[in-house]
Amino acid sequence: MTEGPSATALIGSLPVSRPFIAPEELAVRAGHSALLRLGANESAFGPAPAAVAAMRDDLARVAWYGDPESMKLREEVAARHDCAVENIVVGAGIDDLLGLAVRGYLSPGEASVCALGTYPTYAYHVTGYGGRLETVPYDDDGKVPLEKLARTAHQRGARIVYLANPDNPSGSFAARPALEAFLEELPAHTLLVLDEAYADFVDPRELLPAPINPRVVRMRTFSKAYGLAGLRVAYALAAPETIATFGKIRLQYGVSRIAQTAALASLAEPGFVAGVVREVARGREEYHAFGRELGLATLPSSANFVNFDIGTRERAEGLVAALLARAVFVRKPGAAPLDRFVRVTVGTAEERAQFGVALAAALEDVGAKAPA
Amino acid sequence: MTEGPSATALIGSLPVSRPFIAPEELAVRAGHSALLRLGANESAFGPAPAAVAAMRDDLARVAWYGDPESMKLREEVAARHDCAVENIVVGAGIDDLLGLAVRGYLSPGEASVCALGTYPTYAYHVTGYGGRLETVPYDDDGKVPLEKLARTAHQRGARIVYLANPDNPSGSFAARPALEAFLEELPAHTLLVLDEAYADFVDPRELLPAPINPRVVRMRTFSKAYGLAGLRVAYALAAPETIATFGKIRLQYGVSRIAQTAALASLAEPGFVAGVVREVARGREEYHAFGRELGLATLPSSANFVNFDIGTRERAEGLVAALLARAVFVRKPGAAPLDRFVRVTVGTAEERAQFGVALAAALEDVGAKAPA
Repeated sequence: MTEGPSATALIGSLPVSRPFIAPEELAVRAGHSALLRLGANESAFGPAPAAVAAMRDDLARVAWYGDPESMKLREEVAARHDCAVENIVVGAGIDDLLGLAVRGYLSPGEASVCALGTYPTYAYHVTGYGGRLETVPYDDDGKVPLEKLARTAHQRGARIVYLANPDNPSGSFAARPALEAFLEELPAHTLLVLDEAYADFVDPRELLPAPINPRVVRMRTFSKAYGLAGLRVAYALAAPETIATFGKIRLQYGVSRIAQTAALASLAEPGFVAGVVREVARGREEYHAFGRELGLATLPSSANFVNFDIGTRERAEGLVAALLARAVFVRKPGAAPLDRFVRVTVGTAEERAQFGVALAAALEDVGAKAPA
Repeated sequence: MTEGPSATALIGSLPVSRPFIAPEELAVRAGHSALLRLGANESAFGPAPAAVAAMRDDLARVAWYGDPESMKLREEVAARHDCAVENIVVGAGIDDLLGLAVRGYLSPGEASVCALGTYPTYAYHVTGYGGRLETVPYDDDGKVPLEKLARTAHQRGARIVYLANPDNPSGSFAARPALEAFLEELPAHTLLVLDEAYADFVDPRELLPAPINPRVVRMRTFSKAYGLAGLRVAYALAAPETIATFGKIRLQYGVSRIAQTAALASLAEPGFVAGVVREVARGREEYHAFGRELGLATLPSSANFVNFDIGTRERAEGLVAALLARAVFVRKPGAAPLDRFVRVTVGTAEERAQFGVALAAALEDVGAKAPA
């Protein structure tokens, strides 16, 4: 093997990483046949009935490639955002689009800035494409430190700043005025990659409006409120030049036919998503109430999950393990100061009740109540 | 905009390309509501009934991400190929896997060799990652010039040689002894990327056996014989070190849940694919017979398509346009010496009959019979 093919110097230098251990694997490890899935912010409310019907009708045609331009879906998305199809590119999930952004705008050795411990796939791409990742810790209240991000971007000459808004894993949200001020503070040559995976859970008037600022790429997904995570479909909204750049390197046939079908049908049933958003808001309130009852502080959240303060990293890790032993899958933020929290996806009413019981019991298991 | 964010030097230098115009767009251009789809080598025989049933059962769970390890699918694939799960990585189509191979093994400026005009997505990746693409024309009989590829690989110090086998667009096939001899002729440091998208159409005894040669990555897809092109699922077979390299840069959640479900169910119904392979062989014979009746030579094919010799590039382009005017979608090889051919996917018996009528009429339209 020593004289055989070898990976490039960059790829050879990368660690073999497992950014996520899937619930399927955790179930096997813990000896459960199934888990209550509250760890990956999947929608407990499933896909829209119209999407299921449209997929069922299209199953016989999965032998056909999807439209490489996703034209019908882009037309519908453009109408919703009051922009042109040239402002939209469809990808196989935001993970895919993040890779295109990094590959397109960050040369090896160049700097990118994000919050320490935010959605890890962004960092995975920066490292994987040879960029330099500069991070700024969250504020202790779970907020993304926008001023520090902007300052670091200037200091490091960052080509890209990544912001998840609402943020994952914290759930915090910077509304439009704060976001617009942040954008003004960024260096002029810096691209803001705005991951709006959870933006369907906030009032659209709090988001950036059309027309599209050429210094921003906004990314939206059908994985969260729309309940289509298992299909891989998302889109980016940006200036036509930016979209054209993504188009130079994207997989032309990368978005599956069935995902296009389901996304389009979902957009035609807005009442379903509105109902999901309402139920998620109700579920967040229940989770905050669980926290109060159990003496656990919770972070405000604008997304479909809530973070419970377990006091210390060790206690939080113990609680995740204790919940897994009770067949409940949750995850926790990995980096200080949020590593003392456990992040729990909002489930259905029944799942929330199950979780409430399991949480109380798991806290007993680990003796991990937060200090009074 | 001049002082705003700008793409990297590499990506900025790439052309805005449209490697494929989709049949959906061609239909709109030509004013047809639908086309007879014989241009993208999609399976006319659709997915296996077991796959459709499994997908239907799983539709309610598309809100859940697929297993990022595709473990059940890898276990089944490993059993079929008599290897370990560590020899297998699942990707969102061979297009996705080709990108990982190029990114993993070809640094910017390094050389890669392939046949001129072979499956264009490979060249798209080489260019897109800043590699140097060295090409060798097909032999005039449509065969891939293996000796010249190996010689060029030595001359240019190629890190990767790409071979589609059976080849697309020619349909030619190098059976195991020729392939093994070719592999021995390649430089020791060269990785052979063996695109076996159409390998389900040949006798498995003609393919490379397990155990896996560490100098080769074999890529297999569910898009062709299995009729799942619209789902995006494929796998690579390689040495564990190579698979681990792919794992450092692949999208962890890139393979959709429903694609995993459908692929797994398809493997459990081997009789369906065997039937597809038999029917495709029958259809190829019909196409060769059409050629004889119409005075058009055809290339031998080991895949689900046949090339008809139309005499010149101009006549072949005219025929593609004339077929489109008759609502038949076909494509043609772009580079000499194969650019005088038109490539036609094997359809169902009914579609083949429709195509035969359309071909005769389109030849009349263009006066494009080959010289006697």
